[in-house]
Amino acid sequence: MFWSGSFIPTLKEDPQEAESTSHKLLLRAGLVRMLMSGVYSYLPLGLKVLGNIQEIIRQEMHACGANELLLPALQPLELWQKTNRDKDLGQVMFSFKDRRGRSICLGPTHEEAITDLVRSHVSSYRQLPLVLYQIQTKFRDEIRPRFGLIRACEFIMKDAYSFDQDEAGLNKNYEAMFSAYKNIFLRLGLKIMITEADSGVMGGKVSHEFMVPSQDGEDVVLSCPKCAGARTFNEVDSQDCPKCKTKMEKLNCIEVGHIFKLGTKYSQAIQANFSDAKGQLKPIIMGCYGIGVSRLVSAIIEQNNDSGGIIWPLEVAPFSVIILPLDVADASIINLAKDIYRQIIDAGKEVLLDDRDERAGIKFKDADLLGIPVQVIIGRSYLKDNTVEIKLRSSSSKEKIICPKDQVLAEIKRLANIN
Amino acid sequence: MFWSGSFIPTLKEDPQEAESTSHKLLLRAGLVRMLMSGVYSYLPLGLKVLGNIQEIIRQEMHACGANELLLPALQPLELWQKTNRDKDLGQVMFSFKDRRGRSICLGPTHEEAITDLVRSHVSSYRQLPLVLYQIQTKFRDEIRPRFGLIRACEFIMKDAYSFDQDEAGLNKNYEAMFSAYKNIFLRLGLKIMITEADSGVMGGKVSHEFMVPSQDGEDVVLSCPKCAGARTFNEVDSQDCPKCKTKMEKLNCIEVGHIFKLGTKYSQAIQANFSDAKGQLKPIIMGCYGIGVSRLVSAIIEQNNDSGGIIWPLEVAPFSVIILPLDVADASIINLAKDIYRQIIDAGKEVLLDDRDERAGIKFKDADLLGIPVQVIIGRSYLKDNTVEIKLRSSSSKEKIICPKDQVLAEIKRLANIN
Repeated sequence: MFWSGSFIPTLKEDPQEAESTSHKLLLRAGLVRMLMSGVYSYLPLGLKVLGNIQEIIRQEMHACGANELLLPALQPLELWQKTNRDKDLGQVMFSFKDRRGRSICLGPTHEEAITDLVRSHVSSYRQLPLVLYQIQTKFRDEIRPRFGLIRACEFIMKDAYSFDQDEAGLNKNYEAMFSAYKNIFLRLGLKIMITEADSGVMGGKVSHEFMVPSQDGEDVVLSCPKCAGARTFNEVDSQDCPKCKTKMEKLNCIEVGHIFKLGTKYSQAIQANFSDAKGQLKPIIMGCYGIGVSRLVSAIIEQNNDSGGIIWPLEVAPFSVIILPLDVADASIINLAKDIYRQIIDAGKEVLLDDRDERAGIKFKDADLLGIPVQVIIGRSYLKDNTVEIKLRSSSSKEKIICPKDQVLAEIKRLANIN
Repeated sequence: MFWSGSFIPTLKEDPQEAESTSHKLLLRAGLVRMLMSGVYSYLPLGLKVLGNIQEIIRQEMHACGANELLLPALQPLELWQKTNRDKDLGQVMFSFKDRRGRSICLGPTHEEAITDLVRSHVSSYRQLPLVLYQIQTKFRDEIRPRFGLIRACEFIMKDAYSFDQDEAGLNKNYEAMFSAYKNIFLRLGLKIMITEADSGVMGGKVSHEFMVPSQDGEDVVLSCPKCAGARTFNEVDSQDCPKCKTKMEKLNCIEVGHIFKLGTKYSQAIQANFSDAKGQLKPIIMGCYGIGVSRLVSAIIEQNNDSGGIIWPLEVAPFSVIILPLDVADASIINLAKDIYRQIIDAGKEVLLDDRDERAGIKFKDADLLGIPVQVIIGRSYLKDNTVEIKLRSSSSKEKIICPKDQVLAEIKRLANIN
């Protein structure tokens, strides 16, 4: 992608609306823009990051045998009345009547809709286990949307659901998801804490939360300095470690994943039953497994930044490589930039070429702000002694690799992990 | 994908709710399910088809320099008051108040939102031209949702927008899109008619519609049998060809694309201006370019089916290949099926293996219904003389390729276009 024909509106100053580090950087790096409080547009670079996160999630979901589908946002309110969650969720649910008088809501989550779907098509133990998931837009009428993508009214979630005939099946699926979640967050470059948590409005007994420690996080985790146990903070909690009785420490976190052993709460209410091997009718045993996909963009930025901007982990970066020709009026500089650009594209990777007629200082600052892992700088040294500078965004600003022209491509491929 | 762990609820009978051929087949082949009138869940196979369509559209959009972004569904109603389209669209727009009393609507289209975004970030002719697009879920409160995905209340669209400093720029972008649209529909295996159309509520003077002739289409096209001209039917139309005065014929069609030269309707109302080379402030000149993505699934089925079911064009098929081991209890049959399965996966393609313990007749019927292009049948002939049957879904049912075991993979790759 050439910067000139693209839409990357970077900002020099921190916008007033920004409430946290990630929120500032999301706006300054031109990743998102607010349309109204709690509602964001994903600009081209933000959408690329989202796409990369989704790709990692899909790979790990497929690896544990989950099938992707896509449920609608519009849902009949009567479906929620079956589980009483129209009341439990209360004003958090956007609801309204359509022109024909139907009571409709915008799905804040999809347990009811998926249970209703499975109810219609699964009737025998032979059709179980079944694991379904979607990556889909949810809506919540938050009283106080905050921190950009962290607490938004319209946001993207991955929600998976497991359907089993017995507890052993549920436990197996739960463990597979638990392990997939660890892989996902590792690949996303996140340091996480896993806590035992309260199931709240979702129901069920066992649940775990995946937490990203961050000073701007809205959740509080109690962590034991001695035995490394962790649990989600709850007002009624005593603050001693249940295992070793040490006083626990409070840590602010962003919740990025939450998995639940739901049991039969939804299948009983919606009558999603199956016949077991003896012909007996039983409610299907369910689990549900959520990841806050759009919120992850913020969480990754919270853990990967410096005073200059974002430092994307390679696998989620909007581009692996940015090429900075420092003088676009110089034919030999711009030609080399385009040559390298073309060769990277031919190797199957997208790359950003900053072809703007701007001063070197502005290009450097914007490149650091965007956080693309590999910066390829073509300037005076190329004219003088045929070398190109390569800088890793994650290294200190003075560390540069001076590379003879004919070795540039191999070096870029090595650093950006291009085959 | 193994059929057994997947979610492909095929139906033997036409469901009562189905109103057209594609609607029946969407439901019978387990591609979608209705959650409520006009609102559908995309099941795994339907979602795969949608994904393939989206991939083709993305490739052609990128080829004409368009940048992908993603705008929200929730929009402030006041943005629509600026163009008066809150009234023009009337009850078709879902609108409601949130808990803080803000008037919100669900975007039935995004001219206002994109113009508002560009207004904030484009101020100079040097930032033009710019082409942005998204593939996104729209909402319309249809008085009479019909024909499954053809007229739905929640549906997926590709909407692109061009921003230019003059008419010449608009014309260039319009022509590039026109040509991209022809490529897209060709690759989707559709025979289309292109008509000059009325711009209606969108505004602007010039517009073209891309129409798929189908007996269940809701739009009517006037086609000239002599000079091949075509235009969208309008109640006030005289029915003689404007070019050669021949009486025109009426043809039912499904509208799958519509492109508009919008001019300055939106940029003037929302004050999206730019300074030209002389420093003069002018409204940006816009075009918009829509494709009904989810509706395309229906349109492709309408043009590609027979009495047995769907006949997917190779590039949109949920899988290129389905493997049918006719006796899953026979170890040599199921082992060969899994061998071929693994080899196709290793070649980078997904494949469906019907591992259900069902009669051959049921497997054949379901395979025809699903419409996967290449059927690989492993049955008695394999036990007898080491051969496998390969059938193309698009050929007559008796035409089969008898293939010695050691040539099966090469033959599948050739037929399914796998490298």
